[in-house]
Amino acid sequence: MSTPSDGPSSNGLPFVKGHGTENDFVLLPDADRDLELTPELARRLCDRRSGIGADGVIRVAPTDHGRFLMDYRNSDGSIAEMCGNGARVFARFLVDAGWASPGRLEFETRGGMRTAELAANGDVRIGMGPVAVGAASVVELAGSEITGRAVDVGNPHLVCAIDHDPAELDLRTAPSFDRALFPDGVNIEFVRTDAADAVTMRVFERGAGETRSCGTGTVAAAAVRLAEDGRDSGTIRVTVPGGQVTVEIRSGTADLIGPAVLVYSGTLNPAMLSG
Amino acid sequence: MSTPSDGPSSNGLPFVKGHGTENDFVLLPDADRDLELTPELARRLCDRRSGIGADGVIRVAPTDHGRFLMDYRNSDGSIAEMCGNGARVFARFLVDAGWASPGRLEFETRGGMRTAELAANGDVRIGMGPVAVGAASVVELAGSEITGRAVDVGNPHLVCAIDHDPAELDLRTAPSFDRALFPDGVNIEFVRTDAADAVTMRVFERGAGETRSCGTGTVAAAAVRLAEDGRDSGTIRVTVPGGQVTVEIRSGTADLIGPAVLVYSGTLNPAMLSG
Repeated sequence: MSTPSDGPSSNGLPFVKGHGTENDFVLLPDADRDLELTPELARRLCDRRSGIGADGVIRVAPTDHGRFLMDYRNSDGSIAEMCGNGARVFARFLVDAGWASPGRLEFETRGGMRTAELAANGDVRIGMGPVAVGAASVVELAGSEITGRAVDVGNPHLVCAIDHDPAELDLRTAPSFDRALFPDGVNIEFVRTDAADAVTMRVFERGAGETRSCGTGTVAAAAVRLAEDGRDSGTIRVTVPGGQVTVEIRSGTADLIGPAVLVYSGTLNPAMLSG
Repeated sequence: MSTPSDGPSSNGLPFVKGHGTENDFVLLPDADRDLELTPELARRLCDRRSGIGADGVIRVAPTDHGRFLMDYRNSDGSIAEMCGNGARVFARFLVDAGWASPGRLEFETRGGMRTAELAANGDVRIGMGPVAVGAASVVELAGSEITGRAVDVGNPHLVCAIDHDPAELDLRTAPSFDRALFPDGVNIEFVRTDAADAVTMRVFERGAGETRSCGTGTVAAAAVRLAEDGRDSGTIRVTVPGGQVTVEIRSGTADLIGPAVLVYSGTLNPAMLSG
């Protein structure tokens, strides 16, 4: 009796599956930098019935500068600059796989250089770079108009303040937004203020639909919470459907602190790559 | 630089993920019959964000009679007698892992003994045992009443004939049914007749909600299609959201023929078992 892994694993594509506050990712280690991650492959991997299932795919590849690239794709195959929850899982992977040492590390993204720091309790702190609160804009959701604030966290967000529990919202269909202001789409957060330093939110991500969490979205929500009080620095606790994170903002630069879990490692059946 | 699988895989729980017409399953090989598959573990494995994600879990264990047991659990942890799509994936696993030879094999389920036969084209034929069409009963869906026929396929079904595309139905909330007639719940199929020998359906499974396919549900739908024409034998092509299967019924006994795909093998991080 042979081991079950003799079946689909031989010559297949190795991967690791992880999540940060239930925003989940397929990590593709690419030590030799020869993996061609096409939009079609990303979509196939992210399919929750016929593939592995995830909100996004992260190819992990060494760079010429002795660091690692976080090559992120949304579940629809589109390219994204950066993903805060994905960055925590990416950093956890680097350390657990022995590719990097615990403590502080720098890594590259399409949105620029970022830093990660692994705490003893398992939490990961990501240096998210600058966050800037911009103009007001209106979204329409299920026939109602809600005014939001545009926020740039390397990617575009629209933070909409609501005065009731976000759990009551119907996010099964996409909110509509001002396509002149956001020609490449926008991630939309619906945020209730719980206290001066605490908010609860849900998020509708471009290219993915509603997710259990969105790292840059929590940074955007925290920045707007501070701006509403005329502050440019502070620490905000953000509750999302998938858990809780902390956002620290100092003079317009944000850190995101939260959990990162590696759930399993696997090998994709090679037939799935050609089928 | 060590291999990425050094991380979560050591001492973890090995599994294989597969699907039949996008009805997807976590297979747990249990050669030593010492794996305790609790309802809590089944729920955790089936969580599509924090776990592996599946419609159900199948523990694969040898029996004292030289066969294999298909120990099936729904994604809510409850026990099910049998699952036709799961049986195809289970049979494909046995052969691909080298636990059984290609061709015809017998296996055990809580619903009794079943047979599987692997075709050269990858399709798997499952002997589903007796199917019996019973009384009429009414379900309510989104304020509308639809009359169905109860069907026993080892597990209870209610097949509701509709005259439009099932894709138009809103199955985000559970249909209500006669709890006196179905005290343990019932799987509900919404079926449109496309031709004398072809139907299109969607299914709402007890313990799982809407799924992309349900093997016993396709058998139930085929049996009702035949009964509507006063036939007790025939071959019906059944289209479900996840693909297409064929049901052959001869004098009240059904075979289900359809694809079975092993998508990947993996090892669950041991921390997920205790966390």
